[in-house]
Amino acid sequence: MTVGIIGLGLIGGSMAIDLRRRGFADRVIGVESEPVNASAAEKIGLVDAVVPFETCISESDIVVVAVPVGTAVKMVMQILDRFQELGAKDKIVIDVCSTKEQITLATHYHPCRSQFVSTHPMAGTEYSGPWAAMPNLFDGRACIFANAEESSPKALATVERLYDTLNMRPIYMNASNHDVHTAYVSHISHVTSFALALTVLDKEKDEKHIFDLASGGFSSTVRLAKSNADMWVPILTQNRENVLKVIDTYIEKMTLFREAIDSFDEEKTRSLIEEANRIKKIIR
Amino acid sequence: MTVGIIGLGLIGGSMAIDLRRRGFADRVIGVESEPVNASAAEKIGLVDAVVPFETCISESDIVVVAVPVGTAVKMVMQILDRFQELGAKDKIVIDVCSTKEQITLATHYHPCRSQFVSTHPMAGTEYSGPWAAMPNLFDGRACIFANAEESSPKALATVERLYDTLNMRPIYMNASNHDVHTAYVSHISHVTSFALALTVLDKEKDEKHIFDLASGGFSSTVRLAKSNADMWVPILTQNRENVLKVIDTYIEKMTLFREAIDSFDEEKTRSLIEEANRIKKIIR
Repeated sequence: MTVGIIGLGLIGGSMAIDLRRRGFADRVIGVESEPVNASAAEKIGLVDAVVPFETCISESDIVVVAVPVGTAVKMVMQILDRFQELGAKDKIVIDVCSTKEQITLATHYHPCRSQFVSTHPMAGTEYSGPWAAMPNLFDGRACIFANAEESSPKALATVERLYDTLNMRPIYMNASNHDVHTAYVSHISHVTSFALALTVLDKEKDEKHIFDLASGGFSSTVRLAKSNADMWVPILTQNRENVLKVIDTYIEKMTLFREAIDSFDEEKTRSLIEEANRIKKIIR
Repeated sequence: MTVGIIGLGLIGGSMAIDLRRRGFADRVIGVESEPVNASAAEKIGLVDAVVPFETCISESDIVVVAVPVGTAVKMVMQILDRFQELGAKDKIVIDVCSTKEQITLATHYHPCRSQFVSTHPMAGTEYSGPWAAMPNLFDGRACIFANAEESSPKALATVERLYDTLNMRPIYMNASNHDVHTAYVSHISHVTSFALALTVLDKEKDEKHIFDLASGGFSSTVRLAKSNADMWVPILTQNRENVLKVIDTYIEKMTLFREAIDSFDEEKTRSLIEEANRIKKIIR
C-alpha cells in the first residue's frame, strides 16, 4: 500500500516513520510546500520521495492531510473533488486535525464523503517541523474518529488498521462533542500557558534575572507556550465558541482565587485548592 | 554533627535522607506533630529518632524548620528565643520557606538573628508527606539565601556547606526580591493550575467522559493542582501583594487572547502566540 502524507511536520513525519517501519505502507510519499522542510524531510529519510500534490493524489491509496486546520478543510475538499474526477472509488483521505466540527460540516454533502475518515490522533509535543518527527509518538494514545458513520465501512476499517499499526486506542465521537471536549482538556491548556509566558516575559523587561528561580513546576505549566502559531491560530479560530466559553469559566475561577487572597479569606482559598485537588483522582 | 528537622514532609524528609547518606550529619533527629506522619517517618527510617520539640533544640547543632510558612515564622522565633535562654551561641536554625519577606522581617531585631539563616531550596514535587520524601531531590537545583548578610559568617558558611552537600546552587538575594520573583515563576503557576483544574472539573459534572481526551499537555499544565492546601494557603497569604499583582497581569493577558479570538483577529492572536514563544529561549 502507498501512503501519501501532505505536510511533513511533527504529526505527518512521525506517521511516515512508523507506518513504513511497521509494514503498513510499502511506500510513503510526501508533499511539503515549505522548501526547507521538504529538503529536511528527504535528507532525514522520513519519506521515500517528496512529490507534487497531484502525484501524491494519483499514486497514493491513502492520503493523510497533516497541515494546519484552516488549510486542511480546503485541502480535504479539493482531494475529494480529485477522487471524483479520477473516478478513484477506492482511494481514502484522512485528516488529523485538532478541531473536527468545521471539517465534517464542509465535507458532509460531498459525493465522495464516504471516502473521507476524519480523525484526531491525540499525540504531540510542543515542537514542530520534520526535525520534531519521532518514532513511537502515537503509542498508547487515544485517536478520535469523528462522525465515523459518514465513512464507508471499508474505508473506516482500513483507517482503523492504520491507527492500530500506530498502537492507538480508537474513540468514536461526534465532531461537535469532540470540539467541546478538546476545548477543555487541550485548547485551554495552551491558552493558559501562552498567557503565563506573556505575564512573566513582561516582568522580565524590568527584572533580568527572574528566570534564575524558575522551577520544574513553572517549566511544566509554561511548556505549551512554545507551541507553534501556524498550528494554534486556526485551532483557536475554528473552535472559537467553545474556547471562549472555557476562557470565561477559567477567568471566573481565577477571579475567585483573586478575591479569596485579596480579602485574606484563607478558608475560601483552602476550599478552592481542595476542590482543585480532586484532579488527583483523574490525572495520575 | 546532629541535624534536627522539624516537619518530616517532602522537603524535611528528603533533606534527612541525603544529609545522613552523604555524611553531612552523623545523626538526624526529627520532630513531627502529625502522629501518622511521625510513625511513617520512623518506619521508613527517614530519621534516627522522632523526638519532642525541646529535645530537638537541645540536641541539634542545626535545626531545620520545614513546616508550612505560617507556622514557620512563629517557630523560628520560638527557637531563637530558646537559643538565647540556653546561651547556645553555636546552634543554628534555618527555614526552607517559599516566602521570605515575613520571616526575615519578624526575626530582624531578634538578639540571636545571626544564628538564623533564611533559605529557600527550590525543589519539590506536587506530592507531600514523609512518603513523598526521596533521595537526590535537591541535586542541581537553586537554593536562595535571603538577607544572608544578617547571618553570622560562621553560621552562613555551615549552611552553605549543608546545601553544597545537597548539590544545590546558591543564589543570594534580598527577601523582598525573592518574593517578587517567586510570585512570577512559581506561585502564579500554582494558581493557574488550580484554576484550570476547577474549570475542567466543573465541566465534568455534565460531561462524564471529558478526561478520556486529556493529553500530555493537559496533564503538564494541571499537574500542580495536586498541590497541598496546608502548604499553599499560607504562601498565597504571605505573598499576597505580589501574587495579586501577578494574577492581575495574568488576567489581562488572558483577556487579550479572549478579545482577539472573539473578534476573529487572527493577526492579533498570532502576535500574542509568537510573543509567548519567546519563552523557548529561556525554558528548554
